[in-house]
Amino acid sequence: MKPMGPIPPWFAADEGMLLIGGCGAASLVDEAGDTPLFVYDMAIVEAQIRRFRDAMPGRIDLHYAIKANPYAALLTHMVGQVDGFDIASGGELAMALASGMAPHAISFAGPGKRDDELSAAIFAGVTINLESEGEGRRALAIADRIGKVPRLAVRVNPDFDLKGSGMRMGGGAKPFGVDADRAAALARAMIDGGADWRGWHLFAGSQNLDPLAIIETQGATIALAARLSDTVGATPPLVNLGGGFGLPYFPGDVPLDIRPIGVALDSALESLPDILTDSHFALELGRWLVGEAGVYLTRVIDVKISQGETFIVVDGGLHHQLAASGNFGTVVRRNYPIAIANRFDTPAASDPVTVVGCLCTPIDRLGDKVALPPVKEGDLIAIFLAGAYGATASPAAFLGHPSPRELLLG
Amino acid sequence: MKPMGPIPPWFAADEGMLLIGGCGAASLVDEAGDTPLFVYDMAIVEAQIRRFRDAMPGRIDLHYAIKANPYAALLTHMVGQVDGFDIASGGELAMALASGMAPHAISFAGPGKRDDELSAAIFAGVTINLESEGEGRRALAIADRIGKVPRLAVRVNPDFDLKGSGMRMGGGAKPFGVDADRAAALARAMIDGGADWRGWHLFAGSQNLDPLAIIETQGATIALAARLSDTVGATPPLVNLGGGFGLPYFPGDVPLDIRPIGVALDSALESLPDILTDSHFALELGRWLVGEAGVYLTRVIDVKISQGETFIVVDGGLHHQLAASGNFGTVVRRNYPIAIANRFDTPAASDPVTVVGCLCTPIDRLGDKVALPPVKEGDLIAIFLAGAYGATASPAAFLGHPSPRELLLG
Repeated sequence: MKPMGPIPPWFAADEGMLLIGGCGAASLVDEAGDTPLFVYDMAIVEAQIRRFRDAMPGRIDLHYAIKANPYAALLTHMVGQVDGFDIASGGELAMALASGMAPHAISFAGPGKRDDELSAAIFAGVTINLESEGEGRRALAIADRIGKVPRLAVRVNPDFDLKGSGMRMGGGAKPFGVDADRAAALARAMIDGGADWRGWHLFAGSQNLDPLAIIETQGATIALAARLSDTVGATPPLVNLGGGFGLPYFPGDVPLDIRPIGVALDSALESLPDILTDSHFALELGRWLVGEAGVYLTRVIDVKISQGETFIVVDGGLHHQLAASGNFGTVVRRNYPIAIANRFDTPAASDPVTVVGCLCTPIDRLGDKVALPPVKEGDLIAIFLAGAYGATASPAAFLGHPSPRELLLG
Repeated sequence: MKPMGPIPPWFAADEGMLLIGGCGAASLVDEAGDTPLFVYDMAIVEAQIRRFRDAMPGRIDLHYAIKANPYAALLTHMVGQVDGFDIASGGELAMALASGMAPHAISFAGPGKRDDELSAAIFAGVTINLESEGEGRRALAIADRIGKVPRLAVRVNPDFDLKGSGMRMGGGAKPFGVDADRAAALARAMIDGGADWRGWHLFAGSQNLDPLAIIETQGATIALAARLSDTVGATPPLVNLGGGFGLPYFPGDVPLDIRPIGVALDSALESLPDILTDSHFALELGRWLVGEAGVYLTRVIDVKISQGETFIVVDGGLHHQLAASGNFGTVVRRNYPIAIANRFDTPAASDPVTVVGCLCTPIDRLGDKVALPPVKEGDLIAIFLAGAYGATASPAAFLGHPSPRELLLG
C-alpha cells in the first residue's frame, strides 16, 4: 500500500454518500448529466477568503490568479469578494473583463506577451507587469500608437527565493521579471517614457507550507521594494508581494497556518520604510483559494485483476487531471487524496487497489496502490484538490475523449 | 551547455531558411497566418511508410495508431496508404470513420471503454480489442441489444515486456488487456457467445530503439499467440503484434534500423506454428510514422538576460508541446532537437541559451542551455519531433493562450 494525501477537512458523508456543498455526489452527477465532472463549491472558496481576511491586515489586498481556475461562473462569483484578478494571457484578459472585474483591478504578468496582448491590455486599462526592458519598450511604443497612457508595473526577479516552494520563481537566473539590480532603471525609464507607473510585482515562489519561510520572504520582499523605490525616487502605488500559500496534497503535508503570516505582515506594515508608507500591498493567490473547493468525480468502468493486483478503471484520467497523475512539474509521483464518493465512510479493504484513467497509456495513473473500500463497476471515484490546475491544465484533447463537465455550487 | 537530440535527417536549409516539404518555414507561417504552428510533411510520413513496406514481409499489415496525431487532413491522407487505424476512444472512432477508413480495418483498444463507446463501435462494425472479461460481457450484452454480431479481439497482457521501451505495456500487473493465462478462456467465451472473434492484440511496449529487443519480443508474441490459439482451438484471423518502433529524440539516441526486424519476421512467418498459418499479422505504429514529419514553429517574443544567463522567450510553450518540456511521462528532462528556423545553417554561438515558453510557470522550458546561433526578437524557433504527441497531447487551454495552428503539406 502507498499512502495518499489528506482529504481536505470540508467533506463529510450522508448515508455513505460524499456531500459537496451539502449535495450528494451522485445527485450532482445527475444534475450535470454525466461523469467525468469537476464540482466547485463556492462556499469553500468563500471560507478561504474569510480566513485570509481574518488573518491578514486590512491593508493587504487579495488578488486571485485566475490561471488556477478560470471557470467563468467561478470568476463571476469572485468579483466583489477579492480585490483584483491576476491574468497571464490575452485570453485570460478577455475572461477577466467578461467576469465584470474592473480593469484597474486587473494585472497581467507573463514572460512572453505578444504585441496584440500588450495592445489589448493597454487599451483596456489593466496593469501590465513588465517582464523585461524589451517588453517595456514595446509597451511604450504600442501605447503611443493607440494614444493611451499605459499602466505599467515592473516585475522583479528577486535576489532570493521562497525556500521549500513547489515552484521556485526567484533566487537565480529566471525567465520571469528583470533582475533586481536592473528593476529600478526600468521603472525610471517607464516613468520618463510617460507611463503611469503602478509599482512592483515580486513573486518568489508558490505552493509553500512553511509559514516561517513565507514570513522571511515577505520581509525580504518589502525591503527590496523599498530599496528599489528609493533608487527610483518614487513611492510605488502598489507592491504585489506575490503568493506562495500552499495546500496539503500529499502524505505528510501539514496544512499551512496563515495566522502567523498575518501577524508578521501587520508588524512589517507598522514599521514601513518611509518611501512605502503610502503604498498599497497585495497578495496574489490562486491554488490556495480554489484548490480544496474542487472535487473531480469519475465513474468506475471496470474492476480488473492482473497478476493479483486490482485495477480500478475510471472514465476520467490524466486528460482532465494531469497533476494528479504526477505529470505536471513533479519528479516523483505521489497520490492525491482519493475516495469512493458513494461509499465515503466505509473502511478500506485490506488489499490496495490502483486507480487508472481510461487512456491507453501507462502514465494515466490516478491512484497507485491506495487503500479504498471494496470497489464495484458504476461506483463514483472522487479525487480531491481538483479546484486548481485541473480542467484547464490538462491535455483535454488527448485520445479524443469528451471534455469534463464543470459545475459550480454557488 | 546541455546537449540536444539529433535533428531528423529530412531537413535542410535554403539561404539559411529551414525547409519543410520544400517550403521555407517563414512562408509556411505566412500561409498559416501566425505562430505557434505545427507543420506536418506528408512526404516524410510516406517515406516512413515506404521504409516499412520495403523492410517488412508483405504479409505484415501496417496499422496507424491515430492517437499519435489525429489531425483530420493527416488521417485522410493516411487512408489507402496504411492497412488500418487503431483508435482509443469513441471520439477517435468518429475521426477514423470521418477519414474514410473502412470500419473493418479499424480496431479499438483502451482500458476504460464506456457502454456508449462499445455500442458505437459495434454498430459501426469495427473490431474491439477487449481489455477484460467484464468488457467482454458488456460488449456481448450491447451487441445483443442492438442486434449486431460484434467483432471482438482479445487484448493480451503478455507475460513478458519489450525491454528498453519508453513505455512498458506488458510483463507485470497491468491495466491493459487480460493476463495471458486467462486470454484463451475469454476468447472462447466470446466465440461461444456468438461474437465474430477477430484474434489477438498483444502490445508489449513502445518507443524502443533496440532491434534485437523488438525481434525477441515479436518472436515471443507469435509464440504466445500460437499457444493461446491452440488452447482456444481456432485460428485467429488477425494477430496484432503491437508496435514499439522508436524514434531518436535525445542526445545519444541511435536511430532504429528496422531491416533486421523485417528479416526476423520473414523467417518467423516461414516457420509459423500450424494454427497460425492462415492468420493475418499487423504492426501498429503511431509515433514512428508521424513523429519526424512534424515541426513546431514558434516566434521569439523576447531575448532577456538574467544573472548572466540568456533566456529566449517564445510565443509557444508546454501548452502545445508538453512532451518537449519534459512533463509527459519522463522523469529526467532532456532537450528535444531545436533550431532557429530562419538561421538554420548558422553555427552556434559560444554561450548556451535557454528557450522558454510564454507560460508563467518555471516548468515551461523547451530547451535548457542549448547551443543556438545568436537569437533575435522575431526569429522563428523550430522544435523537431513534433509530429506525434504534440498538439493533442498538451494542455492547450492552460493560461488561456490561443490553440496552435496546424498545416499539412500533402
